[in-house]
Amino acid sequence: MDENDEASRAKLPAGVVPLKNLTRGQASVAKVLQAWYIVARSHELTDNALAATVWDIPLVLFRGAGGQPAALLDRCPHRNVPLSLGQVAGAELQCGYHGWRFGADGGCRFIPSRPTGDADGPARKVPSFATRELDGFIWVYATPDVTPTVEPYRFALMGAPGYDHVVSLVTAESTLHAATENALDVPHTAFLHKGLFRGDSRGVTITAVVRRSGDRVEAQYLGESRPPGLVARLLSPSGGEVTHYDRFILPSIAEVEYRMGDENHLLVATAMTPVSDFVTRLWAVVSFRLRVPHTLVKRALKPLAMQIFQQDAVMLKAQTALVKRFGGEQFASTEIDVLGRHIWRLLRAAERGDAPGAEVLEERVELVV
Amino acid sequence: MDENDEASRAKLPAGVVPLKNLTRGQASVAKVLQAWYIVARSHELTDNALAATVWDIPLVLFRGAGGQPAALLDRCPHRNVPLSLGQVAGAELQCGYHGWRFGADGGCRFIPSRPTGDADGPARKVPSFATRELDGFIWVYATPDVTPTVEPYRFALMGAPGYDHVVSLVTAESTLHAATENALDVPHTAFLHKGLFRGDSRGVTITAVVRRSGDRVEAQYLGESRPPGLVARLLSPSGGEVTHYDRFILPSIAEVEYRMGDENHLLVATAMTPVSDFVTRLWAVVSFRLRVPHTLVKRALKPLAMQIFQQDAVMLKAQTALVKRFGGEQFASTEIDVLGRHIWRLLRAAERGDAPGAEVLEERVELVV
Amino acid sequence: MDENDEASRAKLPAGVVPLKNLTRGQASVAKVLQAWYIVARSHELTDNALAATVWDIPLVLFRGAGGQPAALLDRCPHRNVPLSLGQVAGAELQCGYHGWRFGADGGCRFIPSRPTGDADGPARKVPSFATRELDGFIWVYATPDVTPTVEPYRFALMGAPGYDHVVSLVTAESTLHAATENALDVPHTAFLHKGLFRGDSRGVTITAVVRRSGDRVEAQYLGESRPPGLVARLLSPSGGEVTHYDRFILPSIAEVEYRMGDENHLLVATAMTPVSDFVTRLWAVVSFRLRVPHTLVKRALKPLAMQIFQQDAVMLKAQTALVKRFGGEQFASTEIDVLGRHIWRLLRAAERGDAPGAEVLEERVELVV
Repeated sequence: MDENDEASRAKLPAGVVPLKNLTRGQASVAKVLQAWYIVARSHELTDNALAATVWDIPLVLFRGAGGQPAALLDRCPHRNVPLSLGQVAGAELQCGYHGWRFGADGGCRFIPSRPTGDADGPARKVPSFATRELDGFIWVYATPDVTPTVEPYRFALMGAPGYDHVVSLVTAESTLHAATENALDVPHTAFLHKGLFRGDSRGVTITAVVRRSGDRVEAQYLGESRPPGLVARLLSPSGGEVTHYDRFILPSIAEVEYRMGDENHLLVATAMTPVSDFVTRLWAVVSFRLRVPHTLVKRALKPLAMQIFQQDAVMLKAQTALVKRFGGEQFASTEIDVLGRHIWRLLRAAERGDAPGAEVLEERVELVV
Repeated sequence: MDENDEASRAKLPAGVVPLKNLTRGQASVAKVLQAWYIVARSHELTDNALAATVWDIPLVLFRGAGGQPAALLDRCPHRNVPLSLGQVAGAELQCGYHGWRFGADGGCRFIPSRPTGDADGPARKVPSFATRELDGFIWVYATPDVTPTVEPYRFALMGAPGYDHVVSLVTAESTLHAATENALDVPHTAFLHKGLFRGDSRGVTITAVVRRSGDRVEAQYLGESRPPGLVARLLSPSGGEVTHYDRFILPSIAEVEYRMGDENHLLVATAMTPVSDFVTRLWAVVSFRLRVPHTLVKRALKPLAMQIFQQDAVMLKAQTALVKRFGGEQFASTEIDVLGRHIWRLLRAAERGDAPGAEVLEERVELVV
Repeated sequence: MDENDEASRAKLPAGVVPLKNLTRGQASVAKVLQAWYIVARSHELTDNALAATVWDIPLVLFRGAGGQPAALLDRCPHRNVPLSLGQVAGAELQCGYHGWRFGADGGCRFIPSRPTGDADGPARKVPSFATRELDGFIWVYATPDVTPTVEPYRFALMGAPGYDHVVSLVTAESTLHAATENALDVPHTAFLHKGLFRGDSRGVTITAVVRRSGDRVEAQYLGESRPPGLVARLLSPSGGEVTHYDRFILPSIAEVEYRMGDENHLLVATAMTPVSDFVTRLWAVVSFRLRVPHTLVKRALKPLAMQIFQQDAVMLKAQTALVKRFGGEQFASTEIDVLGRHIWRLLRAAERGDAPGAEVLEERVELVV
C-alpha cells in the first residue's frame, strides 16, 4: 500500500499556499463532541471555581451540593463575563460582576438588587455539562444539556492488586489525531527515541496484526523480542518474547500494553483532551506490575517518560506549524503506518454520530525493528 | 421586563462558535464619527509631534501658528510613513523620511529636492481634523475635513468657585458602550465594589426615575440614604438623603452626580475616547465641593478611584475576550439594567447621523440596595 | 508629473479602513518566482541542515554529493515535519521523526522499518530547487523542479585586482519594492541621512538621466559635485565631479555606483531576498578601490552603513505597518521619485513572466541637492 491518507484528500483552504502543487489536504480534526474528556484531577477542584477548556469550549468547574463536581459554560448570561472569575457560595456559583448565582444545572437562582420576579428563566440558564468523578479524575461530557448514554473510560488497573501507577500530564501542540497516532506508532520509536525507548534496529522482522471493531482498533505485535532500550531492561531483565498491543479506543484513549511472562505487565493508558483543534492535553496513567522494585520504577518512569514525550513534542509542534503554514496536511503513508488511518476512520464516524459498526477488520503487516 | 438587549439580537459572524445555540448577538459598537473626543491633555502637546488614535484612525497632533493645536491623519501622502515620526518646523509638520512639510490644514507646503512646481495639490493634502483646546484638554472631531456644527462637552465645574477637581486617565479593554454602561450601573457597585464604594446591601428599596430626551438619558435615584462605604463617608459625615443622578450624554460622556445637602456636591464626569472598537480611554474629571478638607479628599480620591476602576477593568477585559470568543454579545438583561439599552439606542441613532429626537421618555424602576 | 504610482490605483481589500476616502492602493508586491535569490553565505552551510525562506516558501539547505548545495521544500512528505529538524547522513538528508532519507533531487531513498518496496515514488518526492554557489553565496531558484534558463547575478568586482569588499546582511520589514526604491532613492538621503551620507542641501540643481531597457533601469546623475558628507570625504579628499549611477536589475539587485576620477570607484551591490511579502533581507556587497587606505575604509564602512540602514529601517517598518493598517499603499509621487515606478513596472512584468522588452526609454529630471 502506497497511498495517501483520506485526510490528505480533503479540500484545501484557498490563499494559503504560494506554490499550487504543494498541498492537497486539510488537517485531521474530527470534533467528537458526544464524548467524555478529562478536565482536571480530583484534588485540583477544591472550593474555588476552576476554568477548563475542551474543544475550544470555555468551562467553569465547581463543586455543588454534596461536593459533586459541576461544569457550566464559563460565561455569565447577564453580561458575558467568565463565571470562573466568581466565587462558590454554598452549592452555587456566583458571578463576580453583579453577583448572579447559578446552580449545578446552570439555572439562575438569585439576582442581587432585584426586588421581585423569578431569578430563573430560559434566557438566564447557563449551558451545563454532565460530569463524572472517577479514578481521581474529573470528566466532562462535551455536549451541554444532555444526559449521556455512555460512561467515561476507566483506568482498569488503577488500584488493582499488585499494581502501582504513575500519572503525568503533558500538552502537545497538535491535533488529537496526530497526538494519538504518535502515541501508538512503532516505527518512530525506533528512530526518534533510539537509545531511550528502543535501541538501533536489529533487522528483526515482526508482524503487526491489526484488528478494528466497534469503537476501537488495535495492533498486536508478533515475534518481538525484548528490545535493548532502557525501558525494556526495566521490564524484563531476563529478556524473552514480548506481548505488545497498541490500542485506540474512541474517542481519545491510547493504550500501549506490554507483557513479558506472567510477572511483568505494563499499561500506558493515555486519555487525551482536545483543548482546541491544535492543542491536546495528554493524561497518561502508567500502571505496572513488575519484578523489579516498584519504588525504583516509580522514580525512573516519570523523567524517562518526560524525555520521550519531549522528543515527540518537538516533532508534533513543528508538524502542526507546517500543516497550518500549508493550509493542510499532505501525508504520504506507507503500509507500516498501521494505525493512523484506522484511528481517523473511527474519529470521523464518531464525529458524524455513527453507532460503532459490527464489522470486524483484520490485516497483517510486516515491520523491521 | 425579562428580555435581551437589542444588541443581542443582531446577526452573528459565522464560524466562531463551536456550539450553535450559544450565541446570538454581535458586539455593541456604534461608531459615532461626527463627534468630539479628547486625544490629549494640553500640557502633553509641546513642540513635538504627538501620535493619538480615535476609532482606529491614527492621528498626529502638533501646535501650528499661534500654538493652536492641529490634528492630521498620521500618514504622509508621499510614501505613507507616519508623520508623527517627523518634527515640527515652525508652524509646519515635517515628515521624517523625505522632509515634506504640511500646514495645520493638511496642505503640503514644501517638498525638498524639487526644483519647481507647487508643493500643494489635492493628492498631497493630508486629511485634517478640527481641534479645540478647552479645560486643559485637546479635543479632536473624528471626521476629517469638515467644519463641526457642534462644540465639545465642557467640564462645567472645573474652575467653578469653591470647587476642586482631580483628573484621571485609565484605559478599558472594552467597547465604549460597555465602559459607559459600567460607569453608570448601580447594581454592580453594590457587589463588585462592596466595601469600597458601597457596603453590603441593606435591603432598602429605592426608585430609579429614567428620563431619555434629545442627546441624553439620566437615572435619578429616589429614597437613597447615605451608603456605608468609604466614599460616602467622605461626602457626608452626618448621613442624610442623597440626591444621585447617573447621566449619559452623547457621544461619550458619563456623569455621576451626588449631592448631600447644599454643602456637598460631587460630579464624576468621564469623557470616553474610543481608541478602537474594543479599547476605550476614560478621561475622568472628579469635581467636588465638600465640607471635609479638600486636601484630604484630593489625596484619597485618586487611589480610591483607581482601585474601583481596577476591579471594573478586570471584568470589562474578560467580558471583551469572551464576547470576541463567541463572536458576539449575548446579554440577558433585567429591568434593573436601567441605562444600558437607552445608551445603546442613543449611540446607534448618533452613528446613523439622526438628529436628537424631541420625544421624552420617562420610566420608573425599583432596586434594592 | 504629479500623479500617483500605478501601485496606488489597485483595488483595496474591503473592511480595513474606517474612512472611505483615505485609501486606494494595495501594496506593491510582485512575486517573481522564476528567479534566483541568495539564501545563505557559503560558510553558513556546513554539514548540518539549514532552514531558509524565500517568498514564504520554507526551504531546507544541505550539502549533498561532492559538497554541492541542495535545496528542498522543508517538509517531509510522510508526516509534514520540517526536514531541517533532521540530520545530514552522507549525501542524503534524513528526517528527524521517522528517519526517511532524501537525495539532493528530493527523491526518497530509504524508509526505516519497511521490509520491502521501493522507497522512491512520486508521493514521496520532495520538491527540489536549483542551487548555485557563487562569490561565497548560496543562491536558490524560487520555482521547484525546473531547470533555470538564466544564471544568478554576479558581484563583478569581488576579487577584481585592486578592489576590496565588505559584506553586510540586514533585514527590512518592507516589501522588496519599498526596500529597493529606498536603496536607490536620492532625495531621502539628503534629508533622512543628512550629515551622514549627504549634508544639508546646497541648492545645486543636478540632472538625472533615467534609462530603462530590458531587465534594468538606471539613473545617471549629471552635475553632482562631491557632497560634504562623511562617505564622500572618504571617497575623494580632493573633491571634484562625481559619476554616480543608481541601478536596478531584475529581479532584486540594487546597485549604487560612484566614481571620482580614475582612482576612486565604489559599488554598493545589494541582492535582496524576499523572505515574505513584507520582509526583505538585503545582502549588500560594497566593493571599492579608493585612494585612502583600504584598512581604514573597511573599519569605517560597516558601522556607517549600519547607521544609515538603521534610519531607513525605522521608516520602512513604519511604512509597512501603515500600509497594512490602511489595507494598501496610497503614494503621491512626484517627478523626483525617479526610479520607483520603473522598478515596479519591471517587477510586474517579471511576475507575469514577460520576456524583457526591446524598448529603450530615456527621460531627464532635475533635482536640487
